[in-house]
Amino acid sequence: MSKTSKFIAEMLGTMVLVLMGCGSAVIAGADGTTGVGLLGISFAFGLSVVAMAYAIGHISGCHINPAISIAMTVAGRMKISEAITYIIAQIIGAIIGAGILYLIIMNHPTGAVKPWALGSNGWGIGYLDQYNTMAAFIAEFIFTFIFLMVILGSTSTKNINGGFAGLAIGFSLVLIHIVGIKITGVSVNPARSIGPAVFAGGEALTQLWLFITAPVLGGIFAAFTYNLLIEKPELAK
Amino acid sequence: MSKTSKFIAEMLGTMVLVLMGCGSAVIAGADGTTGVGLLGISFAFGLSVVAMAYAIGHISGCHINPAISIAMTVAGRMKISEAITYIIAQIIGAIIGAGILYLIIMNHPTGAVKPWALGSNGWGIGYLDQYNTMAAFIAEFIFTFIFLMVILGSTSTKNINGGFAGLAIGFSLVLIHIVGIKITGVSVNPARSIGPAVFAGGEALTQLWLFITAPVLGGIFAAFTYNLLIEKPELAK
Amino acid sequence: MSKTSKFIAEMLGTMVLVLMGCGSAVIAGADGTTGVGLLGISFAFGLSVVAMAYAIGHISGCHINPAISIAMTVAGRMKISEAITYIIAQIIGAIIGAGILYLIIMNHPTGAVKPWALGSNGWGIGYLDQYNTMAAFIAEFIFTFIFLMVILGSTSTKNINGGFAGLAIGFSLVLIHIVGIKITGVSVNPARSIGPAVFAGGEALTQLWLFITAPVLGGIFAAFTYNLLIEKPELAK
Amino acid sequence: MSKTSKFIAEMLGTMVLVLMGCGSAVIAGADGTTGVGLLGISFAFGLSVVAMAYAIGHISGCHINPAISIAMTVAGRMKISEAITYIIAQIIGAIIGAGILYLIIMNHPTGAVKPWALGSNGWGIGYLDQYNTMAAFIAEFIFTFIFLMVILGSTSTKNINGGFAGLAIGFSLVLIHIVGIKITGVSVNPARSIGPAVFAGGEALTQLWLFITAPVLGGIFAAFTYNLLIEKPELAK
Repeated sequence: MSKTSKFIAEMLGTMVLVLMGCGSAVIAGADGTTGVGLLGISFAFGLSVVAMAYAIGHISGCHINPAISIAMTVAGRMKISEAITYIIAQIIGAIIGAGILYLIIMNHPTGAVKPWALGSNGWGIGYLDQYNTMAAFIAEFIFTFIFLMVILGSTSTKNINGGFAGLAIGFSLVLIHIVGIKITGVSVNPARSIGPAVFAGGEALTQLWLFITAPVLGGIFAAFTYNLLIEKPELAK
Repeated sequence: MSKTSKFIAEMLGTMVLVLMGCGSAVIAGADGTTGVGLLGISFAFGLSVVAMAYAIGHISGCHINPAISIAMTVAGRMKISEAITYIIAQIIGAIIGAGILYLIIMNHPTGAVKPWALGSNGWGIGYLDQYNTMAAFIAEFIFTFIFLMVILGSTSTKNINGGFAGLAIGFSLVLIHIVGIKITGVSVNPARSIGPAVFAGGEALTQLWLFITAPVLGGIFAAFTYNLLIEKPELAK
Repeated sequence: MSKTSKFIAEMLGTMVLVLMGCGSAVIAGADGTTGVGLLGISFAFGLSVVAMAYAIGHISGCHINPAISIAMTVAGRMKISEAITYIIAQIIGAIIGAGILYLIIMNHPTGAVKPWALGSNGWGIGYLDQYNTMAAFIAEFIFTFIFLMVILGSTSTKNINGGFAGLAIGFSLVLIHIVGIKITGVSVNPARSIGPAVFAGGEALTQLWLFITAPVLGGIFAAFTYNLLIEKPELAK
Repeated sequence: MSKTSKFIAEMLGTMVLVLMGCGSAVIAGADGTTGVGLLGISFAFGLSVVAMAYAIGHISGCHINPAISIAMTVAGRMKISEAITYIIAQIIGAIIGAGILYLIIMNHPTGAVKPWALGSNGWGIGYLDQYNTMAAFIAEFIFTFIFLMVILGSTSTKNINGGFAGLAIGFSLVLIHIVGIKITGVSVNPARSIGPAVFAGGEALTQLWLFITAPVLGGIFAAFTYNLLIEKPELAK
């Protein structure tokens, strides 16, 4: 596939993840009786990945997450120059996704729907269950580590069931959201945090550092663990 | 497969989608405590597609949605004459599905179940979260665009994981409903809107124009985007 | 596989379906706040089929439902003598499953868990949403028709995605329960109704006739529809 | 794969199962309105298995459960020396998983989150629906029997749909949790019970015997049933 195809695919995929994942929280609501509940939001994020994995996986590999592109580079499965292009596409796509969500919410005349900071990630006093910075960092680090272990293992060339990777990866994101939404809203993806933060501002912006560092470090740790302890590394392509 | 087989398959498939999708809202209820909730309704629509994709996909491709047949024609994957036959079958099937649902509801003597307009789509004052026309149009356009991107990508002849398309497409419809039910009830499918509207009448009929134009335009936009920016078009068959 | 293997497989499979499906309603509860809700019960029935389809599908085909075995015979895919053996195994398995559930419930000293007739099917005054006999019959007939269309299509030798049949069939049972629980509790399977009725007695027994006739007729109608209108019949084996 | 790879894979896999499964109950909550509900907890345990099955299945087979390794040995599919190594890795992983969960919970300054004994299993007065010892033993025995039947059948070399085993096994664990959480919290896995018990102490420790004996016996019974009644045994490797 051409570079343009990959760029557009990564941009559209991340747009879908942010619009639909964050949209489920903002539009449909976290209450399990009147809305889709935390379980519904979890499925929204994960099924976005399932859907896009089979839609654009054959084009770009469907990273739609800078932490994945960086970990893939560290694991020797991707060139650094390509990773940079992917990350730019992902951040642009995330901002477009959050922008479309903003546009829909603004067209709600009675104001009954609260934008809830467009599904921004966060932690501390006033954010969901008010976990502290340490809990937020540990959670984002370990969840991204787990996420990348699933990605590295299920897409390994030594795995004969590679066709199932899209389901396994998407369902692992459902899982991570089921467990972690009350801590940070779950990022494990810097682009997914940047998109809403651009429109929400405030703490969503000042807390962005954690949703960039923790997922990237967790992903890099997974790349080393997988290559050194689980499976011999492939040659860099 | 013969033309008759395809016609019957598309008719039955659309019947199942409307009967079961709308039936989940009307019979089982949108309340998450006493009914199946918005998440249950979302799964009903999406799992109808998963079920029928593997039941009749080898017969007709399981479009069961005029927006898909039109987008497939624009994308060069289907003849216009066949698309017209498909669309007729889909609309007939949708009306039959809504009719069976009507028949079941009418046999509820105590009247405790409200037909809720047979699961009609809508927007504005008095319809769910009361979003305005702009929000409804943007939502239906962008959701159908996303839906068709998943369909075009997952069923591409260049995608080696084509067997998973039924799951990816069905789960993407679950996703779209999780996010969008409170806006329009989610159509992304003119036939799915026409079926209940025939029995519900009133605003369900007068608002049909949006559930025909927005999904069709979103689907056509996806066909152009996919063929021009993501993957080289296939030759028309 | 030997006849004994098939008999044991069908018996165990139906035991699992009844124990786990009905168990989800009786033990875990239909309330979506404190229990697993109607959606959880729907997943319990459907995932029982997904699990057993891949566990014993290669042994017996995993019918675990007399309506399926009869429809398969009518469709020319099974000998009548084998169908009779299957049905006997299924009914025995269903009774064992209900018996194990009874045993667990009896060991609940404080009596806080209501056996709720062990998950019996029913309709009319006093049963869930109190639909009348006509609604119950139409629902069971049409739901079994849909269920068998999915089974006949997804397991057809002309379907290249046959490996996905277990998921498609199981998810279609999730779907049918999402829509129909409030009408009859959903049978679409005479054995599933017989099992709990043996222990529950009363109306669960006197109403059994509908849960035998409607699913069997719906299945036979699907067999004729599929063979005559959708796909040429295969030769009887 | 090397012994080290398998050890690390089993350790990490069990860590994920305990951290995410128990984490869903402790962090996200069993209430279906404000938390993820019993259904969300059920999906967390089951999707942990789906995710890890495709992540490390090609490395170690992804047992992540001593009852599975023992049953596989009895069924003649694994050497006893390897099973012992697996079980050690699983128990270490489970304790690490519970430890990470403990670390996250301790960083919740306002104390609004109740550790709920870190998701420990149990029964009797004061534990969930207060079933007695007999019910707890029957449930853990029969649920592990069912779980192992799915594992033995879906991973059989005679099953041509082996690629789907990860989904079938994971979904069967979702199913078992839907039905059984109110009885024992569902173990069917001695390691999953040992991990939280180490930190919770008290009854979680004194009741461990049941969560070791019942799952192991249920698994062994499944191994004999499968090999003697369902399918001829494979030669021990």
